[in-house]
Amino acid sequence: MDTLPLSRAFTLIEPGPVVLVTTHDGRKDNVMTITWTMVLDFSAAFAITTGPWNHSYAALQDTRECVIAIPTVDLIDTAVGIGTCSGSDTDKFGKFGLTRLKAKHVRAPLIKECLANIECRVVDMVDRHSIVVLEGVAAYFDNARAEKRTLHAVGDGTFVVDGDKLDRKEMMRAKLPAGI
Amino acid sequence: MDTLPLSRAFTLIEPGPVVLVTTHDGRKDNVMTITWTMVLDFSAAFAITTGPWNHSYAALQDTRECVIAIPTVDLIDTAVGIGTCSGSDTDKFGKFGLTRLKAKHVRAPLIKECLANIECRVVDMVDRHSIVVLEGVAAYFDNARAEKRTLHAVGDGTFVVDGDKLDRKEMMRAKLPAGI
Repeated sequence: MDTLPLSRAFTLIEPGPVVLVTTHDGRKDNVMTITWTMVLDFSAAFAITTGPWNHSYAALQDTRECVIAIPTVDLIDTAVGIGTCSGSDTDKFGKFGLTRLKAKHVRAPLIKECLANIECRVVDMVDRHSIVVLEGVAAYFDNARAEKRTLHAVGDGTFVVDGDKLDRKEMMRAKLPAGI
Repeated sequence: MDTLPLSRAFTLIEPGPVVLVTTHDGRKDNVMTITWTMVLDFSAAFAITTGPWNHSYAALQDTRECVIAIPTVDLIDTAVGIGTCSGSDTDKFGKFGLTRLKAKHVRAPLIKECLANIECRVVDMVDRHSIVVLEGVAAYFDNARAEKRTLHAVGDGTFVVDGDKLDRKEMMRAKLPAGI
């Protein structure tokens, strides 16, 4: 895992990949699959939609910390598996053979098998819309990883894999934040 | 444009495509490109991040209506072009040759050239996070369109095009809403 400048963390979330969100509730780690995410600004602020129906929500509320980990296409069955069982009765890290790495600023673990990880603090919970607002405090990217294609959930049980990449940097130059 | 059941509208936004948001301010139509979007629930509730820095924001605030239109890869230069000029001095529909269709429930227009359109009402504005909460009231999908690949903005001036599609419906059956 290489360090990624926090100023680039939004580029991990903006494309809309399926993410895994890890938490640590004081006793144990847990991880959930989240497909409803959004960038809020260029300074590493993100929103996710979650609520009490997710076992991880209590840990998010109590510790106000998590890690967003971004899996690639080879981890599709892990992502779907994590999303279809509960941390209330399952050690998901053991079940899915995920390797935990120690984070720097939060107690929730990074996931070694993922393409990227963002350590986050919960800065707000907009309960009436089930929106949790996160602020990234450190980001990592595994440059050495060969498979870099992420997954996009459609919501009907199908997933779209990253395809071709198109470059419009010149057209967009004036709109991009400095250093991007 | 074929009608799409509102119960499926979230499947248009969940994958994280670049969207165009049209508004009508009482005098004229406008359209902006938005890449920061999120599903809030299965009953067609969505969030977008926007604020006073977008010319369309005033119309969203005043009329509390808009249309989310979803362009495909062949419209990349239209989407980038719309995102890099302002409705304050540009008739974007004219400039980019977009065909407006009359919506049923809102005064903002549908865009004929897009793959899908969702008529929306603004149900809340969470100003402290620049989040606008929308509720879809009608949805449309152009089944006859050959090109159906959407775009995912990375945020650095590059875009990822939809690639392979993977099916995990069986694994996810218990978690999918009824009828999906």
